Amino acid sequence: MAPKEKVPPDASRISDPSSIALLPKRYLVIRHPKIATVLKVQYEISASVREFLHGKGYIEILPPIVGPVTDPGIREADQASFVWYNGEPYKIMSSMILYKQMAVSSLGKIFAFSPNVRLEPVEARKTGRHLAEFWQIDVEAPRATYEDAMSLAERLLRHVCEGVKKRCVKELLELGRQLRVPSVPFRRMTHREAVEMVRSMGFEASYKEEIPWDAEEALSARFKEPFWVTDYPYGSKGFYYLPHSDKPGLLRGMDLFYPEGYGEASSGGEREYEYEQVVKRIRDGGEDPKKYGWYLEMLKTGIPPSAGFGIGLERLTRYVCGLKKIWDAHPYPKVPGVQSP
Amino acid sequence: MAPKEKVPPDASRISDPSSIALLPKRYLVIRHPKIATVLKVQYEISASVREFLHGKGYIEILPPIVGPVTDPGIREADQASFVWYNGEPYKIMSSMILYKQMAVSSLGKIFAFSPNVRLEPVEARKTGRHLAEFWQIDVEAPRATYEDAMSLAERLLRHVCEGVKKRCVKELLELGRQLRVPSVPFRRMTHREAVEMVRSMGFEASYKEEIPWDAEEALSARFKEPFWVTDYPYGSKGFYYLPHSDKPGLLRGMDLFYPEGYGEASSGGEREYEYEQVVKRIRDGGEDPKKYGWYLEMLKTGIPPSAGFGIGLERLTRYVCGLKKIWDAHPYPKVPGVQSP
Repeated sequence: MAPKEKVPPDASRISDPSSIALLPKRYLVIRHPKIATVLKVQYEISASVREFLHGKGYIEILPPIVGPVTDPGIREADQASFVWYNGEPYKIMSSMILYKQMAVSSLGKIFAFSPNVRLEPVEARKTGRHLAEFWQIDVEAPRATYEDAMSLAERLLRHVCEGVKKRCVKELLELGRQLRVPSVPFRRMTHREAVEMVRSMGFEASYKEEIPWDAEEALSARFKEPFWVTDYPYGSKGFYYLPHSDKPGLLRGMDLFYPEGYGEASSGGEREYEYEQVVKRIRDGGEDPKKYGWYLEMLKTGIPPSAGFGIGLERLTRYVCGLKKIWDAHPYPKVPGVQSP
Repeated sequence: MAPKEKVPPDASRISDPSSIALLPKRYLVIRHPKIATVLKVQYEISASVREFLHGKGYIEILPPIVGPVTDPGIREADQASFVWYNGEPYKIMSSMILYKQMAVSSLGKIFAFSPNVRLEPVEARKTGRHLAEFWQIDVEAPRATYEDAMSLAERLLRHVCEGVKKRCVKELLELGRQLRVPSVPFRRMTHREAVEMVRSMGFEASYKEEIPWDAEEALSARFKEPFWVTDYPYGSKGFYYLPHSDKPGLLRGMDLFYPEGYGEASSGGEREYEYEQVVKRIRDGGEDPKKYGWYLEMLKTGIPPSAGFGIGLERLTRYVCGLKKIWDAHPYPKVPGVQSP
């Protein structure tokens, strides 16, 4: 039997596929030519990432989907909990950081395309760069420094931009995107310098915390090329960031920012890997170390130091394609607070 | 500061890395040389899959992680539910089948490496081929038949075996695996023929249901090459399987089985895509169509017919590597009922 032919409705007449009101009707919006174009570019982004990291000796592994504990360092977002066997509470991964530390102890340099759920506050949808479900390119190397991680990440981003410019000429034209291939090394500023800069622009920002979303967007909009913010203050990031030994109160970690107002791209750094230090840091963060059962057992047996980063794939797609809203960068976007497929 | 060097414990002395009792100590077992070898092969499997499908004009897309509804056709397993915004119940995907039907309406031939959680009954751990969390290579093509899907899947499997034999000589040797490159087309038998065969082997099996796990393993062990079982009876599979128009009570769907006792590899078929038929099938399965909000709305607008399949990546890895237990085929395996990282 030949299946009967059916013509899907024509979605090219949808005037604004980025409209948040249309998300529950994704089955229509996905037919808009813009979405197909973006997803083709996204495919090339992923291919470029694999090509680059494989070429540098990184092996791709399967990431965890769920687990008994996950990353608590996710600002105001909530973790998604469900019931595992015997009534145990499990979480959907909010970041695979703890599992990356396990992987490098055995496999050397690794990367993964990891699934994440973070129930961001509903207000986060205003930023245009938050999804409640997203994919992260997670990279980690044993015995690397945060300088190594920055150097790798910026060459990765340059390689992706080069790859897309070469292989997606038609798509970038359709999207009206003038994508620059950034020069490396990227500009580096400390968190203190970034706070001073956004204060001089009239924003409120604390030397003790991450930069607020509105200030971050304005900071990003001042630049034409991606840039790093390093040396975040102790307490502003997860317990797994290693402190500087020579700069009291500061962490050997960094965030990457896109230019042109696209905001945060990536977080990363060197990892705390010593049992006693991690227990102390977890307590400092107001959490009970008991929660971190397998992770602390692992640290007791000893793991190598490591450094790495995670780059959000939808945010990377948004930047490369020049999209106003991140929900154009996923076939089935989950926007905070919106019920959609 | 150069990070202090630490030597991870030597895991090569673990006598049986496949021991279920060791799963909670995965941070030790992952250091066993066997696991690293398997994960290198798994990397080559994924690379071969992408190479093959890309070459056939399939585009890789991001799969959904969670959603308001997911595949109910998962035998005795439970779905994992959690609370979305406003107290709405959401599920972790148990299969992205409903989303594949959305994708082909817009993007043509697609594939994805999709994350899935199925809380299988604790007894399922005895089969050695069930994980509660797994990855599926999901493939779908608009206006394809189930014959097309079988032809594609078997050439894909052959390509993967060829690729691994070529690129993982050392790893297969270490694993003691004599991997055959299967000849295509694979042998095909109907579900009725398969039931007759396992009955003749002394197993109980019904013409109305899927083949029980123990009988399936024995059937698989009789063959040296992969084989298809087609034409499952109406009611034994999910509501999205298209019935034959000329064979009453049978579905245009198939399962792929590995030989040598490795059992089920893949399920697939042609999809039901007409609104009225799907509503009837959902009701026949004892479910309330209201649950399937966006999916039924989509069918009302009209989607193209399609066919496809999903191949479990860990099962494929188990077969290719000749592993007794599927939990050797994932860096962070989740075995039904076991609390592990």
